[in-house]
Amino acid sequence: MFRWGVLGTGRIAHKFIGAVQGGATEIVAIASRDRARAAELAQAAGVPRAYGSYEELLADPEVQGVYVALPNHLHAPWSIAAARAGKHVLCEKPLSLTRAEAEEMFGAARENGVWLMEAFMHRFHPQTLRVQQLLAEGAIGRPRQVQISFGFTLDRPGDTRWHPEMGGGALLDVGCYCVNFARMVAGEAPARVTATAQWSASGIDLLLAATLEYPSGMVAQIACDYITSFHQTALVAGDDGVLALERAFTMPPDRPSRIQLWRGVHFAPLEVIEIPPANHFRLEAEGFAALTAAGHAGHGLPEMPLVETLENMATIEALLRSAREGRAVEVGGA
Amino acid sequence: MFRWGVLGTGRIAHKFIGAVQGGATEIVAIASRDRARAAELAQAAGVPRAYGSYEELLADPEVQGVYVALPNHLHAPWSIAAARAGKHVLCEKPLSLTRAEAEEMFGAARENGVWLMEAFMHRFHPQTLRVQQLLAEGAIGRPRQVQISFGFTLDRPGDTRWHPEMGGGALLDVGCYCVNFARMVAGEAPARVTATAQWSASGIDLLLAATLEYPSGMVAQIACDYITSFHQTALVAGDDGVLALERAFTMPPDRPSRIQLWRGVHFAPLEVIEIPPANHFRLEAEGFAALTAAGHAGHGLPEMPLVETLENMATIEALLRSAREGRAVEVGGA
Repeated sequence: MFRWGVLGTGRIAHKFIGAVQGGATEIVAIASRDRARAAELAQAAGVPRAYGSYEELLADPEVQGVYVALPNHLHAPWSIAAARAGKHVLCEKPLSLTRAEAEEMFGAARENGVWLMEAFMHRFHPQTLRVQQLLAEGAIGRPRQVQISFGFTLDRPGDTRWHPEMGGGALLDVGCYCVNFARMVAGEAPARVTATAQWSASGIDLLLAATLEYPSGMVAQIACDYITSFHQTALVAGDDGVLALERAFTMPPDRPSRIQLWRGVHFAPLEVIEIPPANHFRLEAEGFAALTAAGHAGHGLPEMPLVETLENMATIEALLRSAREGRAVEVGGA
Repeated sequence: MFRWGVLGTGRIAHKFIGAVQGGATEIVAIASRDRARAAELAQAAGVPRAYGSYEELLADPEVQGVYVALPNHLHAPWSIAAARAGKHVLCEKPLSLTRAEAEEMFGAARENGVWLMEAFMHRFHPQTLRVQQLLAEGAIGRPRQVQISFGFTLDRPGDTRWHPEMGGGALLDVGCYCVNFARMVAGEAPARVTATAQWSASGIDLLLAATLEYPSGMVAQIACDYITSFHQTALVAGDDGVLALERAFTMPPDRPSRIQLWRGVHFAPLEVIEIPPANHFRLEAEGFAALTAAGHAGHGLPEMPLVETLENMATIEALLRSAREGRAVEVGGA
């Protein structure tokens, strides 16, 4: 059974541990800079070992793969350290703060013969896989125009996401889902982006709205923010149908989710595809673990390919530059 | 009973006539440049008189109000002519091609003591009125981020909407609904717009996607096009709730429409507000007719105020300029 070590004890670590324990992989160690916090979570979750430093966990020979659940600015250094310690790495989204960092991380994985993947759990959910299948089958023809929105109210004052130097801000936190989804639908990186943002006094983006133009002609509009009520929607209008998701990214594991589909050009009737409940964190952990037996380390999984992570990080950089400079910005190729 | 004359015999004229006949107002005359076409429609719809020119209809003393259902570039000249003939004017959307034209039209209405209104029928539909009521009640708090999309496939080769000189293009045709809706939600005109467009060989916009920034801080993203399957959606995310419409503009008169509402900030449950079927063309015609008895000619109706029409035309001009010049454009005040 594949043995995980978890770096970090925040909300996402809790979610991951809760989903993974009792499944086809196991969590053998948890690390926090606060040993008591690690011990508390380990005990509550039935995890054998708790460490008071990330280094100690990386030195644990039992650990095969590391789940990096740290604030964004620590993704690169600790993923690289984990790779160097010979651990496979599943790193929370966004993989890094820049494309250059992401390349460095994949380089470290390749050099050390380990797998590295950006943890976009929604990519392992049957709803997302069904959307991909529908698009591939041509259920809505060629996607031409996309609108995606992911917003919520960040009302926790002490949160690391308020700090630009820690990789805070709505785009890196939830906008990355919108960028990911648009790239997935397009099947390619955008050529050009135009963004506008509202900034906090601390310098993070509270709201960012952007238009992404793809070489195919597809146009995506994305919006992400920390100032509206929770919502996460996606609309994909093709030249032979339309597809909409009520809940695009954090599908609840305890009830079905729904794809709305209109097949055809003119006034098609609504078809609702109900997707049975699924825990995408568990599917992600088990999918990643299964792949580590294969030989092509460093390349990412089919569900979340390396090339998409690199292009998405380049897109995120371009979006922030566009918002800061008030002009359209070209996105560099892969 | 208020007596209408209809200029034009296109699809929208058919819809209007079908909705109005048998209600609290009546249609007494139809005009087309093709007398046979006018006669045919008049006979089919039980309308007493058919004219082979617009001038003849405007000279008909029985006609109290004119419904202008002509191609976009004819809205201004024939609305002005109708006002000068002493007729009240309900003119199809978009009222004109520019803000200057719209001002000229309202000037003519004022000088001649008649009412002029832009025919946005959805503004008279109970769904739209309920949305306005919910916003006024604070059901979703302060609107912060809006996404609206209206697209369909224009596959009729001879259509006037393919011609830029006739006021063709997706923005003037269906994007004006998105501009109208965003302005209604914001309660003010946008300060700045940034648009990108895809153009046809004939020079019309096949697709236009834009970000509209409002003085309040609200940001709206709108998309309109002639190249996707039929869809018209709106999402309004506030700081205390979220509201979404499945069908935002052309609500079917034969079945209920639905407002989706989530009240509150975090993970609110979905509330579905079902709106009984209604014919907004009839409501618009009768609302307009009822108002002509009042004394404040030239000012537009409460449902579709003059100031909004003027600001929306200024916004449309700014959007086209932004798309052509590839830069953000300020929208002039009212």
